[in-house]
Parts: sequence; C-alpha cells; structure tokens
Amino acid sequence: MINSKLPFILYGGDYNPDQWPKDVIKEDIRLLKLANINVVTLPVFSWALLQPDEETYNFEWLDNILNLLKDNDIYVCLATSTAAQPAWMSRRYPEVLPVDFDGHKRKHGGRVKFCPNSKVYRKFSVTLTRKLVERYKNYDNLILWHIGNEYDNYCYCDNCEKEFREWLKKKYKTLDKLNKAWNMNFWGHTLYNWDEIFSPSGLNEMWHGEDKTSTTFQGMALDYNRFMSDSILDCYLGEYRAIKEITPNIKITTNLMGTFKPLDYFKWAEHMDIVSWDNYPSYGADPATIAMSHDLMRGLKNGEPFMLMEQTPNQANWQPYNSVKRPGELRLQSYQTLAHGADSIMFFQMRQSIGACEKYHGAVISHSGSENTRVFKEWKRLGEELHSLGDEILDSKIDSKVAIIFDWDNWWAIEFSSGPSVKLKYIPQIEKYYKAFYKKNISVDFVKPTADLSKYSIVVAPILYMLKNNVSNNIKNFVSKGGTFITTFFSGYVDENDRVKLGGYPSELRDLLGIWVEELDALPLEINNILQMNSTLNGFDLEYKCNMLFDIINLEGAIPLALYGSDFYKGRPVFTINSYGEGDAYYIGSDPDSKFVDDLVGFLDSNYSLSLDFEPNEGVEITKRRKNDKEIFFILNHNKDSVNLNLKDYSYVNLLTKEKVFSKITLKGMDLAILRKLANND
Amino acid sequence: MINSKLPFILYGGDYNPDQWPKDVIKEDIRLLKLANINVVTLPVFSWALLQPDEETYNFEWLDNILNLLKDNDIYVCLATSTAAQPAWMSRRYPEVLPVDFDGHKRKHGGRVKFCPNSKVYRKFSVTLTRKLVERYKNYDNLILWHIGNEYDNYCYCDNCEKEFREWLKKKYKTLDKLNKAWNMNFWGHTLYNWDEIFSPSGLNEMWHGEDKTSTTFQGMALDYNRFMSDSILDCYLGEYRAIKEITPNIKITTNLMGTFKPLDYFKWAEHMDIVSWDNYPSYGADPATIAMSHDLMRGLKNGEPFMLMEQTPNQANWQPYNSVKRPGELRLQSYQTLAHGADSIMFFQMRQSIGACEKYHGAVISHSGSENTRVFKEWKRLGEELHSLGDEILDSKIDSKVAIIFDWDNWWAIEFSSGPSVKLKYIPQIEKYYKAFYKKNISVDFVKPTADLSKYSIVVAPILYMLKNNVSNNIKNFVSKGGTFITTFFSGYVDENDRVKLGGYPSELRDLLGIWVEELDALPLEINNILQMNSTLNGFDLEYKCNMLFDIINLEGAIPLALYGSDFYKGRPVFTINSYGEGDAYYIGSDPDSKFVDDLVGFLDSNYSLSLDFEPNEGVEITKRRKNDKEIFFILNHNKDSVNLNLKDYSYVNLLTKEKVFSKITLKGMDLAILRKLANND
Amino acid sequence: MINSKLPFILYGGDYNPDQWPKDVIKEDIRLLKLANINVVTLPVFSWALLQPDEETYNFEWLDNILNLLKDNDIYVCLATSTAAQPAWMSRRYPEVLPVDFDGHKRKHGGRVKFCPNSKVYRKFSVTLTRKLVERYKNYDNLILWHIGNEYDNYCYCDNCEKEFREWLKKKYKTLDKLNKAWNMNFWGHTLYNWDEIFSPSGLNEMWHGEDKTSTTFQGMALDYNRFMSDSILDCYLGEYRAIKEITPNIKITTNLMGTFKPLDYFKWAEHMDIVSWDNYPSYGADPATIAMSHDLMRGLKNGEPFMLMEQTPNQANWQPYNSVKRPGELRLQSYQTLAHGADSIMFFQMRQSIGACEKYHGAVISHSGSENTRVFKEWKRLGEELHSLGDEILDSKIDSKVAIIFDWDNWWAIEFSSGPSVKLKYIPQIEKYYKAFYKKNISVDFVKPTADLSKYSIVVAPILYMLKNNVSNNIKNFVSKGGTFITTFFSGYVDENDRVKLGGYPSELRDLLGIWVEELDALPLEINNILQMNSTLNGFDLEYKCNMLFDIINLEGAIPLALYGSDFYKGRPVFTINSYGEGDAYYIGSDPDSKFVDDLVGFLDSNYSLSLDFEPNEGVEITKRRKNDKEIFFILNHNKDSVNLNLKDYSYVNLLTKEKVFSKITLKGMDLAILRKLANND
Repeated sequence: MINSKLPFILYGGDYNPDQWPKDVIKEDIRLLKLANINVVTLPVFSWALLQPDEETYNFEWLDNILNLLKDNDIYVCLATSTAAQPAWMSRRYPEVLPVDFDGHKRKHGGRVKFCPNSKVYRKFSVTLTRKLVERYKNYDNLILWHIGNEYDNYCYCDNCEKEFREWLKKKYKTLDKLNKAWNMNFWGHTLYNWDEIFSPSGLNEMWHGEDKTSTTFQGMALDYNRFMSDSILDCYLGEYRAIKEITPNIKITTNLMGTFKPLDYFKWAEHMDIVSWDNYPSYGADPATIAMSHDLMRGLKNGEPFMLMEQTPNQANWQPYNSVKRPGELRLQSYQTLAHGADSIMFFQMRQSIGACEKYHGAVISHSGSENTRVFKEWKRLGEELHSLGDEILDSKIDSKVAIIFDWDNWWAIEFSSGPSVKLKYIPQIEKYYKAFYKKNISVDFVKPTADLSKYSIVVAPILYMLKNNVSNNIKNFVSKGGTFITTFFSGYVDENDRVKLGGYPSELRDLLGIWVEELDALPLEINNILQMNSTLNGFDLEYKCNMLFDIINLEGAIPLALYGSDFYKGRPVFTINSYGEGDAYYIGSDPDSKFVDDLVGFLDSNYSLSLDFEPNEGVEITKRRKNDKEIFFILNHNKDSVNLNLKDYSYVNLLTKEKVFSKITLKGMDLAILRKLANND
Repeated sequence: MINSKLPFILYGGDYNPDQWPKDVIKEDIRLLKLANINVVTLPVFSWALLQPDEETYNFEWLDNILNLLKDNDIYVCLATSTAAQPAWMSRRYPEVLPVDFDGHKRKHGGRVKFCPNSKVYRKFSVTLTRKLVERYKNYDNLILWHIGNEYDNYCYCDNCEKEFREWLKKKYKTLDKLNKAWNMNFWGHTLYNWDEIFSPSGLNEMWHGEDKTSTTFQGMALDYNRFMSDSILDCYLGEYRAIKEITPNIKITTNLMGTFKPLDYFKWAEHMDIVSWDNYPSYGADPATIAMSHDLMRGLKNGEPFMLMEQTPNQANWQPYNSVKRPGELRLQSYQTLAHGADSIMFFQMRQSIGACEKYHGAVISHSGSENTRVFKEWKRLGEELHSLGDEILDSKIDSKVAIIFDWDNWWAIEFSSGPSVKLKYIPQIEKYYKAFYKKNISVDFVKPTADLSKYSIVVAPILYMLKNNVSNNIKNFVSKGGTFITTFFSGYVDENDRVKLGGYPSELRDLLGIWVEELDALPLEINNILQMNSTLNGFDLEYKCNMLFDIINLEGAIPLALYGSDFYKGRPVFTINSYGEGDAYYIGSDPDSKFVDDLVGFLDSNYSLSLDFEPNEGVEITKRRKNDKEIFFILNHNKDSVNLNLKDYSYVNLLTKEKVFSKITLKGMDLAILRKLANND
Repeated sequence: MINSKLPFILYGGDYNPDQWPKDVIKEDIRLLKLANINVVTLPVFSWALLQPDEETYNFEWLDNILNLLKDNDIYVCLATSTAAQPAWMSRRYPEVLPVDFDGHKRKHGGRVKFCPNSKVYRKFSVTLTRKLVERYKNYDNLILWHIGNEYDNYCYCDNCEKEFREWLKKKYKTLDKLNKAWNMNFWGHTLYNWDEIFSPSGLNEMWHGEDKTSTTFQGMALDYNRFMSDSILDCYLGEYRAIKEITPNIKITTNLMGTFKPLDYFKWAEHMDIVSWDNYPSYGADPATIAMSHDLMRGLKNGEPFMLMEQTPNQANWQPYNSVKRPGELRLQSYQTLAHGADSIMFFQMRQSIGACEKYHGAVISHSGSENTRVFKEWKRLGEELHSLGDEILDSKIDSKVAIIFDWDNWWAIEFSSGPSVKLKYIPQIEKYYKAFYKKNISVDFVKPTADLSKYSIVVAPILYMLKNNVSNNIKNFVSKGGTFITTFFSGYVDENDRVKLGGYPSELRDLLGIWVEELDALPLEINNILQMNSTLNGFDLEYKCNMLFDIINLEGAIPLALYGSDFYKGRPVFTINSYGEGDAYYIGSDPDSKFVDDLVGFLDSNYSLSLDFEPNEGVEITKRRKNDKEIFFILNHNKDSVNLNLKDYSYVNLLTKEKVFSKITLKGMDLAILRKLANND
C-alpha cells in the first residue's frame, strides 16, 4: 500500500494554490470535498515563493494550506518544488542555465530548465528539500514525497563537458580503452588527452537526417545519453537521500513519462520507492498504446503496483488539437489504469490557471468555477465509485506468461545508427508485437534484457540490436530450459558500446537461432516483399506482406517457416524456427504486416494457452489482477456500442454494482465491469 | 488633398538615381515625362551616400537630382533615407546591429536591420533627417515626407532587454502588479527584481509548434510586442518631430504593409499625417483579399483618403513564382486602389536595378531601357487617363454601414495561445467575414474595438478573444441602441494581459449574447460537424458544415438558430441570437463553411438594405466614393470576359470616357468604369 | 597511363588498417589477394596516429603496412591523411575549427572540418605531407598521391572574413570598382573601407526561401564562393607543391564528387594530374544520371582518362534507404565507369569498420570476415575479368561531336538569384538535355564556356545565364563557322559579377539568336502552356507541354519553330532558329517536357548523324572508346531481361569472352560486352 494512512485508491492530483487568493482557495476546498478528492499534490512549482532570495525561506503560506487540507481530511503528496529554479538564481548564477543541443546558452524562462551538473542547482535544491522535510516530517496527512517534475533536461554546457570527462575516466580508466570502445581511429579521432573529449552535439557529432538523428560515434553518443541520464538522476538522488534520512518510512517518487527516450527508466526505478507516471493520450489514441505504456511503467519495478500521477480531466493545451474528453472517456481511461496495475487515479490539475500557457488545460474546477459542468459531475461520480471499492484491489498484481524485452540502451543505439533505414524506429516495433498480444487479452510484462526470464513461457525481443553482457546467455538459458524466444531483423549486432560483434550476424544468437544473416537489404517503404508461408503451419495465411528491411539468411540448422516471394532473394528463408535445448527460437527477418504478428501470437496462444478464459471481443479489453487467491477481472468496453460477453460457467461479483453475475454480462458503450471471481461455494 | 501643389492623383513612385550614372538619369527624365509621371519618391536608401562617414555629409548629388526634377515639373516625395544604416556605422558601433529571435547577433548586411533601441541609430537618423529638412524645406516641388521604409525590425539584444524593463516599470509601477498581470507564480516564475525580466525569445519563452509560434507567458509576450511596436515607432517619431518642427505644413508618412502582424498600425496611424502602404499581391490573388487590405489601411485613420506608396509595375522578384502582370491587370489593380479610398497610384520602381536582389523586380523602365515595352505603354496610357480625372475624386470618402473590429493585441494574443487548436488564425477568420460582404458589394470599415460604433448598422467581431477596457461596454452600448452585433467562438476570454475573465465564457459578453460556453472542443480539420438550421429562417440552407472548434453552449436567454448535427453535443445550440436593448447579438460557436457566412450576410442585407443599388455580378466589384453630394461609382470587372450591368433607372457620366451612360453598361474583360451619378436634371 | 608500374586497370580502394589489430591485417592481405586487388588507398584518416602531438611523428606502423603490401604485390595510392586534423590540434589551436553558415563556431568532432584559411592547419598539413613524401618517395609500390579527401569545407569565421577582404583587394584593387561590381549603392550598402566587408552568410546576406538559398548581393555571394573554392584549393595546393618538389613524376589527385556545387572543379582540375571522383548512386538511380557525372568528370581535364576513386561494393550507410547492390549491379556499374573513360575501378572500402558511423557501409570484407559472401565472390570474379583485359583499354579516349557547356559560376549565379522562380535549378536543366543525347547513345563532352568548341558539331548551353568575358564571342565564332548552338530561357542576362547586361535580353546573344526577350513570365509548375510546332518540321509532334518560365519574345531575324498555345502571349514565338554565319542558333524560351528535347535531339541526329552505328534499344547503353585506330564499344544492358542487338555487318571481338561476334549479340539482363571492332581483314 502506498501509505497505510489512506487505504483507498488515491484520487486527486496537482493543486496550485500558490496561484490564487485566499477566497478562491476556500472555495476550492469545498469543491474538492464535493468531488470526493482524497489527495492533492503540491507545491510542484513554488520554489520562488518558498525561497524569495538566496538567504530567505518562507513556508508560512504553505503551512496554512497544509493545515487547511488536514482540517478537511485531504491527504498530501508533498512535492519538493525543485523543478524550476527561481529567476534570482538564474540571474545570480548563470551556470544553472543549460546550453542546448545546437550550442545556444538558454536564458531564464519557459519551463526553466537547469543544467543537471550545476553545483549551484544541486546545492540549493537539496537545501530546500531538507528544509521542507524537516518542517513537514510530522505532518499527519503527508503520504508520499514527489521529487522534481518530469525530469528531461539534457544539457551541453562546458560544465557538463567537464563532468562527462570525469564520468568517462571512471568508466574506462584509460584513454586506450576509450579509444577502442568508441573506435576512435575512425576518421582519425584518436584521443591522447581526456581534455580532447567534447560533448557530442549539433556542433560536432550529431546530425539530423530525414526522420532521424544520427551521429558519428555511436559509442560516444550512447555514453553521453547514459551520462546525462545519470547526471539528472543524481539531481533526483541528492533530494532522495535528504528525504530518506529524515522520513525513512514515507515513500518517494517522481513522475515519469512512459516511453520517454532520454532517461533510462529501468535504472531510475531502482532508486524510486514507487513508480508514478503522467499519461496524456491524444485525441483518438489507441487504447492498446496507452495499455503498453502502463505495462512498461509497471515493469520498471517488476510488476509492483504503480501510480498514475497525472492525466487531464478534459482537454490538454499543448496538443495540436486539444479535444475535450468524450462522456465516459475519463472514467474508462481511469479504470484502464487500474486494470494494468495502478493503485491511484490522479490528475493535472485541480483548478484551471488564470494565465500562462496551461490556462486552457482542463481542470476539475474550470474557469467558470462551476460545480455544474459535465466534467465536474463525472469527477464527482467517479470519486464515489472509487471510494466504494475500498482496498479491494489495492496491492493486487498481474501475472504474465509473456515478456517483451525493452532496453533504453538498445533504443538509443538503434536510432543513433547511420543506416540501414531512416524508417527504422524502436517503439513501433515493440508496439507491433505488444498489440498482437493485447488484442487477445494476453498480459505482457516488460522486462530488461538481464531480467530473470524463468517465469515466462514466451519472451519476445523485437530488434534486439545490442547484446550487452550476459544477455545472450540469459536468453539461451531461458530457451534451453523450454522457453520460446522470438526475435527479428537487426538483432545481435553490437556490444554495449555499439561495436559490431564480428564473425557474422546475429553473432552470439547465431547458434540459438540457427541462422547466419549475410546481408541486410533496406528499401523505401512502398516496396514490399512477400512472406510465403510453409503451408503446413496452422492458423497462418499463405502470404503476408513485409517491407523496410530484408535479411538475406543462410540456414545453419534452423527450419524455414516462410520464404521471400520476390526480389533476388526470392526463395530464401525469412521466417525460421530453431530448436535449442528444450525450447524454440523464432526469427523474423523482415518487417511483416501486423496481420502476420497477430497470427503468430494466435499460433503461440493455441500452443501455450496464454489468453484469459474469455472469448476475445473487438474493442473489449480484459485484464486480471490477483491478490493472494482473489482474481479480479477488469472488462473494459472501448466501443461506442454495447457488447455482450460470454462468461462461460463462472460466477462473479461486479465490484462496481456489487451484484452477482453469471454466464454473461452486457456492457454499454464506454462502460466497464470489475468482476471478482467467485469460488464454487461462494 | 495630400498637397495643394499637385491637385491630381499622384502618379509615380520610387526612383533610385543613386544607382545610376548621369546619362542614364537624363534618359530617365525623358521617359518619366513620356509616361506622364508627376511624382517620384527618393532617396529611400542613400544614407551611405548622404553621409559617407560620421562627420561628413554630402548633398550635392541630391541637389542636382532635385533640380533636374523640378526643371521637369516632377514633384517629390522626399524620403529620409534612414531605413538602412551605412556600413561604417555598423562597424564602428556594433550596438546598432540587432539580435534575432534565436539569439544570434546579426552582422551588417542584407536589408540592414538596426536595433530600434540603439541610441546611436536614433541620434544619427534624427541628425540626418534634420539636415535634409533644413536643406530642402524650401524646395518647391516637395509635396510629402517619407520616413524610413517598411519598418519591421524586432530585436532581442541586451539593450532592448534593458529598455523593456524600463518600459515595464513605467507601465506597471510595481513588480507585484507585473507578477499578477503575467500570472508569474505559474511554474514558479515569481519576480523579485526588475532585472530578473528577460526578453521572451526562442532562447526561453517562445517555441514553434506545428503551424504556430506559442509562448509560456502570453502576457509577457504581448507586452514585448507592444514594447517593440512602440520602440520602432519611437524611431519614426524622432524623425517626425524633427521634420514637423521645420516644415509643419508638409504631410508626413511612412509606408505600411497591410495585414502586417508585428506593428500595431492603429497606434502608428495616430502619428502619421496620411496613411500610405505597399501592395504586392501574388499571382492569382483574390481581388477581395486586396480590397480587404485597402479597407484596413483606410480604417487606420477613420476613412481618410490614403496613399498607395508601392506596387510593382510588372513582376516581383521575391515571390516563389514571379509572374508578369497580365494586360490590363496593372490598370485594374490601380483603379481598385482608388475605388477603396486612395488618392495615389505609386510604384516601386521607376528603373530596374542593374544588380543585387531586386534586379528582376519589374520597373517602368526595364533593363532594355525601351519605351516600346508592353509595360511602358500601359503605364503611359494609365498616366494620361489618371491625369484626365483631374481632382474629380480627390478627397472623396467611402460610407459604410458595416464595421469589422480589428485589433492587433487580439491578433497577437490568439496566436500566442497554447491551445485550443494550432489551426486557429486571426486573419483567415477576418477574411471569411469580410469576403461575404465584399461579394455583395457591401462596403466595410475596419475599426478598432474602442471606436465609435454609432454610425454603423452592423458590427462584426470575429474571434473577439481579448476584451480590453471598455470594449464590452462599447459593444453593448451599440447593440442596446439598436445595432446588430455578430461574434464567434473563442470570444470574450481574456483581458488585455491575456488573463482569463473568470466565471464562464464569454464573460462580459455573456448577457449580451445570452449564452454560457461551458466547453470548447478542438478537432483535426478533417472532422466536420453540421450546423442544422432552424427551418423557419429565410435565405439559409438546411445544413452547413463546420469544423476546427466547437463550443458547447448553455443557453441563457438566447434563441438557438442552428444546432449541432453530430458528436456528443448533437442537438446543442451552435448559432444563436439574443435580443439586447433595441438590438440583436448573434453568436457563431464553430467555424462554418463560407457558404454559411455568405448566407448570413444575405440575410442581414435583406433586413438592412446594405448593398449598393446594383445587382451583384460574379467577379464585378462595385464601390462608391462620395464628395459632398457627388456620388462616384467604381465598377471593376475582374473577369476575363465582358459583362453587362443593369444600371436600373439612373444616369451617370463615365469619368474615363466622359460619356453619359444610362440603363446599362457593358464592360470588357479586365475593364472598368467610373460613374458619377447624375441628378435628374443633369 | 596512371603509372607504368601497374599497366592494368586499377582495382582496389580505401583500406584502413589503422583501425585493426595485426592478425586481422594479415587475414586482410590474404583476402585482398584472393579478390585480385592490385591497389589500395591509404592512410586517408590517420593524421592523429601519424602525429600524436605537435612535436612527435610516428611512421613505423605505416612502414610495416607498406612493406606488407609490397611483399604481396599490392600497389599503393598514398594519401596525405590531412582531411581530418587531430583532436589535439583543435584543442590547442581553436582557430582551425570553422564557423558555420549560421554563425556557430563548430566544436571538434564529426567529419572534423577545418577552416581552409587557418594558417595553423596549412602549416601542419604541409609539414605532414612533406614528411610523408620524404619517407616514402622511393617506396617501390607507390603509384599515385591522394591529397586530402572530398574537400567541401566552406567557413564563415573572422579569419576567413579577413582573408576575403585581401582576396577582394587583389581582385578589384579599388573599392570604387568593388562597389560598382556588386552594385553596392543598392539599399545603401556603399563601402568606404575594406573592413566594412563582411562574409555573406545566414547572419546577414543569405536567406532560405522555399526550395532555394537566395542572397541580397549576388556579386558578393559569387565572390565568396570563388574565394572559398580558391581557399580550399590553396590547402590542396600547399600539399601538391610539397609533393611535386620531391616526387615530380608521381601523379597527384584528390577525390572529387561529381555535380558538387561548392567547388569550381574546372579550376581545380587545372591543378590535378589526374581527375578522380567518388560515385555513390542511390537505389534505383537512373544510369543516365550516373553517366552524366562520369562525363562531367571526364570533361574537367579535356577528356583525359579519369579515375573512379570510390564506390560502394554493396550498400551505403548514409542514404535514407541503404539497399544492397543487386547481383550484377556492382559489375555493370563498374564497367559503365570504364565505358565513360575511366581507367580504374576502386571502392570504399576493403574492410567494414567495427564501429562509428560507417560501420554499416558495405565493404569487400564484411563483418562476417567471410570469403563466401555473395559480394566477395562478385568482387573476385570482377577482379579476374578486369585483369584479363590487361592494358587493352587503358589510355583510350572518347570522341564526341556534341558538347554541353557547364559552368560553376553560372550554376551559383542562377541559384543565388532572387527570382524569377524558386523552381529554377541548374542541374535538372543540364540533365534534361544530356539525357536526350544519352538515350540515343550520342556521346557528350562537358566543356567550360571558354573551351575551344571547334571540334564539335553541336554545342548546347542550357540556361547560359552568365556571359563571362569572351563567352559570347566564343560561341558566335563557333556558329559562324558552321556550328549548331542551342540555348534556352534565362540566358545572356549577366556578366561575371551578376550585373545585368543592359539593352534587352539575351544581350550579346541577341544577334546570334535573332530575338529580343521583352519579358519573362514565371508561373507555378502546375500551370502549363503549349508549344505549338510548325507543322513542317519532321520528327516532331504537333504539340508539347511547357511550364515554369515563359519568355515573351520579339523576333529580330529568327524564324519561329513553335508558338505558345495559350495565355496572353498565345501565338508569340517560343522556339526559334536563327542563321548566323554558316551555322544555326536555336532558342527554347520555356521549359518543355522531355519528349520535346528527345525529339529535338532526334531531329539533330537525323541531320548530323551523331549516334553510333547501333540501333538504340531501351535500357541498353553503348559507348565507344578509341585508342589510335582501335575502336572499343561498351554495350551495357541495364535491363533485367536479355536483349538482342543487331551488329549490322561488322565483326568484333568480345574482350571479356575473347570470342568473335558478328551480325548480332545477345546480352543477358544486367550483362555487358566490350567489343573491339575488327578491320575487314581481322
């Protein structure tokens, strides 16, 4: 449980009373209570108010707010307010201002980025945090700490450059090792002095091509990303340690951003007590895409319940077309969050700003101030409903037989690569495989490549381009003990420094997969080839289209399951299976249409019984959370029209209506049920 | 009259003898006389020649030119030559060079921009102006002063930043007021010292999204635009005052640029003796778009006759496709200018340059130097024709019953907004309403929101997003006395600092319009909704398409005239009317197709008899100028083919042919008539 | 012959042993021998290894490599390794780092550009070169010097600015001449001091419009391009002179890049002993486009045999879609190179890098290290085949009756122009005319405008916008003696400083062409006009489409061959012929579709018998090389399917199969023949 003081699903979100006069705040409290809010997050952006100059701190206004909240039984996720430094700091210490990718020193303003290696920033942020914790460590309604906000601040300043050199010295010890790791003899870049290292940026190593940011030295660029992710994490950790020292029993988090490329969230999650994230789907977003982000965030801490820290109650303001949420959409998206393992439903924000760029971002309390808006009324009803669930689903978990390997290093390396195709991107490949499982209501865990795979039946690793230490052994061990492994083109190419593993692709996976990839053809997306399937395979069509990349494969033990249908490699294998120990390893040597992946998952499902015991129904998402022997099913109807679901011979209680259901259930459009399975004797 | 020395329509334009040797200039004079030129503008870009170094001035060459012009009875619009500082100044005083939006210090060159807050620039420009005025104050053929040229030079240098702080101190007095006006507690931007204010630019507050430049603090960005518009105006005013002191009776102007966003021309026009502007339509430009710019320019000084300072005699050089003007196009566009209230027809330029970027810009005297070109011959004929008009139309005015509210602050605020839709732009909305009137030959005045509206029957204010002081009262006063007011979605949101007026949109207009806009939905443009019209309304179709933005409206007294046809707000009102005092207020809550606006104008016309007493004819534009009791009609046939016009029972004299016309008139393709109405006894 | 030590077609290419350990190098040698390699290029990017710091040089590793190569009878094209300065140099002497077009000082990294006017760079590069030459001047297997690599480094730093002023002083002597040449009175840019000259860049004179980089002062921008081309050439020349002093008999080259805009290769070629270039066609590139680049490179030194220095053995890495070469494609493209006059087939590179941005660029020895790859086998076979040709075609030349005038100054000037159309580009116009000849297997020479034209029957000069000194006389001389000249719209406009030649376009060509172009209309590309042909012309259709630009022409002696079919210039001439002396001059006043140009070439061919004595066959390219009285025909089948060629009554020996062929020959898809014509008695 996030905090035993509040044994309910957290319901509330960001609140910015620092932008409002007292009478408005008083009215806010009335409305928050009316809407069944039990928690608010604050103060996220109040550094300038808390510390008006270098020597002065001012907490009285915050004391008052916190007392008012306590008096009204509203709990607090207390933020450290360090996401945006005050203007006085930027003016007095310009070193806190970052330099951007193209070499421009930024001026104070905007979302107020700071250089993550600024000693000034670090000193002041930790000091503020310590003062906050000291002051509020005994505050009754404190249930969680929230550090910073949506960290994302890469920097290319001289100070970062110096720290990068130090980081590299620690990692490589000698320049000789560094020159080798980055292959610096290429283009005569051999280094003889640590000071000859410059940050890779738009001023030297990096360039934007069509659809892609590429780089001269992938090893250097990877290390800079790692260094930046670590540097920013260090900012977080300075505050984390200060808090832990004083309030060791209060959980600490910071709000992540789903499939966010710059930060290695697997590494970050090791230092977070609970994962929280911000979910902002666009108009018409596919529910599967949202589900994938939830599952990735759940995977960061091995399936522990996570938090939804932010979503918008209605429209956003920063999207191209800021559509309002359709009736029921807010509720359905909220429950989808729980369905994927979260124990909170939180929003940005409570009251809509009067000015500045987020003023047209939706809020529980709109500019009208009215409790009679559609959105307020939906909020209020949802609050009641969530409250009625009590702690029924809190701390329950999700079981998966399928894992998808996800790796930030791999993502970076693939997209830093110069070649083979500008159209090759990591996330769409991950998504293609994820969605095939999602459509069949097969739960998927996201794991890092070195994770313990023993509990899974199937492990999928789309474009496993980078094989870091022990990754190939980890996978081989899994397969040899009976696991099923699936990977694709552009896998098994490089080590953690993006140095090619010589001797033939996919290098260490060659014996596992029983193939040698001699060449990799890349063609414009409009040029298709055909996967001609071995006709003895059940559940597959005879042909599928494929495009983008085309491996030219020599078999070394694998059995071909499909052959190319055209081009000069017509008749060569493109989809193969290889037996390895007690398991099987599949290889897909081109980018097939999604129907192929769907059918592949269907084929696996028929062999491994992966899906839940419900008949799939277009647009109906079903997940299961388990708590000891309790099984709780979330059945979400994403369709606009109602659907009937066959429940087979089981009985359930619908936790929302408290009614027993048996045999079948009807769900209206955009409606859902949460069914707890009943034992035969219930 | 611009100047009583020249009681004719001014005919001529920019002349750059500083680029040519004497023999060419001599030939120029012969050709200008041949082409019936009566005025030239010069020297627009001769600062470096007039002042070869900091201490030296050289006017002799200009004396010679001016004498030659006088000897040949050509009048002069005398320019101050301060639009481009000499290279020696930029080299000696780098502070005159501006810093661009992205923080780059510019080098000398190009159109030679200067920092508008450079004290050096201001000192030297005023000094030069004063010397010019002293020298030529008694020059007989001087008829007008022309300051600078197409001012447009925003700057982001440190000096401007300092001046911005001073400007803000004057405006806000205290930082507390500033913090509140800009809502600086948002994202922790609270200011404690004036020096913590930085210019909003690409280095901090501003960002480019899809189709749009947005900003963090709209209040700050608005003030920077106002400050820049004022700073540049101060450059103009320094010269203006120097001139007025010495030649108080000669009118002063500077050439504006129509719907030009950076400068608040309403504010500028207060300091101009006569408005002049440069008209450069592209190939295939809609005559209505050109007409709108003329009308906007005329509106800057309450309908006083304005000047066309520049148009091209043939092709431009800076457009993507520099088409030549079709035969007759030059003449028709020139008369359209008169038709909308101008008393001059001037061109850029007299002789085509031999080198540099404008050398392929058309000119009266082309590179061939020939008087036998098509263009020269058209010029010559047009000069004769204009001369034959004498002072017949000089100083006549245009009467309008319809006004469109236009406001630079509003324009800036709408397009600085983050949300609701990247596709929302000010000018296309203005144009949509303007064109509906134009098509019916209904004259429109452009007025600022605080203008006296009492003389109008109808006032249209598309997206009146910002309600500055007294604007709502001004409009309510107009309606309550019987006026008809029309406004649209995204109106009545904010005050002059872009702070939302709380309590429900459209705030102060809520009682006037009888509605409360609860939500504003924004969708991609390809998603349409339907306006289902109340079938009892005459002259409307049953349905129209609408898209982009969709207000969700609660009626508070208004009567719905159309309802949404789809989406979850199907059946909710989208087009309403409300009685207020003796008048009516219409509200259009989505962006309808132009047919709807056309039909709305038709509906208003049938109620208010707005159009001239001619039958509309596709492609035929008709306007009326009035001078005392003389009514002069411009009938412009923009079609390629000839048209017949029914003149009903009136008699006219065609000022071009000097013939009487009665009952009907036939106009060839691209031809026109200027008809003075005859009294029954004429 | 490139070098008499190696009387074979050079076969090999870039080799980078500096990136590899000894055992790999040993294996490389084995594989290179196996693949019949006879030459390698090195060390192209080893400066940092050769000179680890300012005082130290280290050649031992290179000695070892060179000895190993010699022991294995592999010859060496020795590179000076100065293309990328070491990091220590950039750190110690930041002046070597360039400033980019937008004013950003670059940091060390990437392809490591250097400022071409850096004295430090020049000193160090010449010193290194001298040391290399001294050390290896007697190395037996040295056959060629290779300076730098793909020079392309424009710079905009302060140092370049100073040198630009010096360059201008030398050229113009007085500021008065400079002001006149650049027309600096325009926009008041008059210069009074050499220090008032600033480099034209994105910070002042240059701007990017739609599809185009334009500029304020074309004369200045042209001079900056010339200055940069010269500055970079000076870097090359410093090394060239150092080499020539010591090894006067070894040829020297640097690798050019085909239709590469920044450098005036005609001027460069004057200082190269042999032209070499790098050919990287994209997937699906038209063989005609490749052929054109070969012919342009051959033209740089008046038809002397040139070298192919680089092509990829398989995929590239930097293209959007890095396709592998189709079977046979490598061989066919290699022979096409010979067919157009080259005496070498060289590749980048021998072994594929393990890391950095080119690691996915194809190589003879792939990451697999295998000799059993498709590519290695194709290489090996090609090596055998080339070796079997011996010196048969070495030093043979190509005869052409047709020349196309190509001029870098003209190219720059056209694309610096502001107007008439953003779509006007030089290369596509050149290509349109080139391809029409190519399709009929008519050999074309590329010549500069001042070349001796006397040996040609036909000279084509598409958009000969700039007429430098004597160019018009050169052409008139050619025509008056019976030559046929063809030119197009936008010709004869300016002098070498882009100053318009007054008096009517096309100025000095007016009497030659018998026309006066009064106006030039420019319209969006989707607007077509029609060329209505004089029906008496044989081999032409009755009508062709034309678009983009439209001259409005007055005839002054020329005979119209086609008239416009629409717009206001309908019926005016658009395609004309004029007799001049004993020759004819054609003028094409608009941009016709390619069918028109094809038919025009057909028409000329029927009059002048330009094509080889083979029937054209779609997709079959035929060229002829001649060595004394030996005629060698290259017949390249670019089709996927086989073709039959009628050889008429001649006999040949196929140099590849050594068989005699008579009457006809069949070529498989992607196959070729090299036929030496047999005398009747052979």
